Parts: sequence; structure tokens; C-alpha cells
Amino acid sequence: MFKKRDNIKEIEEGKYLEPKFDKNGLIPVIASDFKTGVILMHGYMNAESLKRTIETKESHYWSRSREKIWHKGQISGFVQTIKEIRIDDDQDSVWLSVDIGNGASCHVGYRSCFYRSIPLGKIENTKFLELKFTEKNKLFDPKKIYKDEPNPTKL
Amino acid sequence: MFKKRDNIKEIEEGKYLEPKFDKNGLIPVIASDFKTGVILMHGYMNAESLKRTIETKESHYWSRSREKIWHKGQISGFVQTIKEIRIDDDQDSVWLSVDIGNGASCHVGYRSCFYRSIPLGKIENTKFLELKFTEKNKLFDPKKIYKDEPNPTKL
Repeated sequence: MFKKRDNIKEIEEGKYLEPKFDKNGLIPVIASDFKTGVILMHGYMNAESLKRTIETKESHYWSRSREKIWHKGQISGFVQTIKEIRIDDDQDSVWLSVDIGNGASCHVGYRSCFYRSIPLGKIENTKFLELKFTEKNKLFDPKKIYKDEPNPTKL
Repeated sequence: MFKKRDNIKEIEEGKYLEPKFDKNGLIPVIASDFKTGVILMHGYMNAESLKRTIETKESHYWSRSREKIWHKGQISGFVQTIKEIRIDDDQDSVWLSVDIGNGASCHVGYRSCFYRSIPLGKIENTKFLELKFTEKNKLFDPKKIYKDEPNPTKL
């Protein structure tokens, strides 16, 4: 399905998809809102989930916590419809530009997984860095949607 | 400098920065153009490069190919000025919203590293997938800028 990576010039400037999967068979994936450019989430795909995403035009990831292919929105209903997929220069990361309508992407309930910002400037070694919430309102109640599903967040 | 990760609720909904570095000590990082939302690059940071980025307000990454901290733009001059840094729900990926003026982010010469799109739809198993270039013009000539620097792209 994917051309073999055997020439750096071809990987960088050629016309064939030659994705690089890491030693666990995964490639990192960024999903952003096609209208606003807001980053919704960062995840991973294996070759099969990349294939399914290309073919179905809906995001499929590899869930590292559940160790299986994860059709985004299967439980929550918040499917990501693909507007465009791009690959980077050395073909070791993927960018999905997606449409989620008025839905959410984050299992905590926010629209974007990136709902907290890090303060900039000199770090005082005596204090922990305090985040600032950039989203205030959850779009859904995770307890109602996910019920007994295990939390994907790990320590 | 960073609070210890010992409580999932606190990681997800708390106010402290508690980044998760992988077993190589790295966290994946997305940089996007603060004006257009275009993803410029995907990279990695270790704790020290995250600290330097927060403090200097200029992107510092960990170069996996050179195995050292990499102040983006040190050679090319195309520094990324930080407008905002966000962290995701489980604090295992970082989003930089950056200003690169009219500059470039990609060592191949394009503004964004994501200059090729993947065609959507049914994949024919007999053919390799052909990418489509979304950027046509390089902003600089890599040979002139990087001279004898080794190419970071690996097979």
C-alpha cells in the first residue's frame, strides 16, 4: 500500500506517500478544526488506521491505552470528518484538517484537548507553573457519555 | 520545576503544569502559525527545551537526529516567536502558536513542513498513493542556508 522508504530526496520532494512508522508501528497525528485552525487533539495511527481514515474520510486512530483501532466518535458520536490530510517533509507525522460541527474532541468534555495555556516568562524554581484555562465550558458530561469506559489518561 | 504526576483528575482538570515525557524524556510538540492556523511543524522537546521555550519565548526543540537542544532558527534565522503555549488534557503533548513573520519553518525550504496532501477515498492495492503539492514555491534555498549541515531526514 505504501511505497518503501529508500531515498531521502524522494521522501522529501517526491510524489509518493511513504509514511514512517516508529518501532511500535505508529505515526503521530495532529487534528485541527478546518475552519478555525484550533488544534483539537494529538494522537497516533498505525498503518491500518491511516488506511481507514483515507478510505472512509473519518478519523481513525490507534488507542495506545486500549491497544486497538479507535474510530473517533464511535462512543461519543463526535465523529471527525476529514477535509484534508497532509504529511510532513520527512513523512513521519500527519495533519488532519477536520470538521466536527459544533461537537467536541476531548474526552474531558471540552471542544479541544488543548484547553489550558502555559504562562510565559522566567520560571521561579520555588513554584510550580500554574496553567490558565482557555475554555470554560464543557460541551458534554463525560460521565453520561462514557459511563464505565476506562479513562484513557494515564499517570 | 514541574509538579509530579500522581493524580489523574489533577492532570486533566487541575491548574498545574505536569508534563508527561516519554521513556526517552521527550514530549511531542505541534507548532502552528498564530495568524492562519496552518500547522508549520511537528517536533519534540525534552524538559530543558520546554523550559527554555517558556522563558525565552522562542521555540527550542530536541533534535532527535542531532541529539541536542535545537534553538529553531539558529542557522536559518527563521526563529519562531511564541504567542501562546498550550498543553493537552493528559499533558502529553504541547501546542505552540508562533509568529514566523514571512519566514519558513521547513528545512526543505517551504513555509510549512506539511506541503503535500494525501488523496482521499478508496485505495487501490495495485498503486502507490500519489501526493499533491499544496505549496509550490520554496522561500529559501536549503543548500545556501544549511551548507554542510547534515539533513535531519532519515530513512
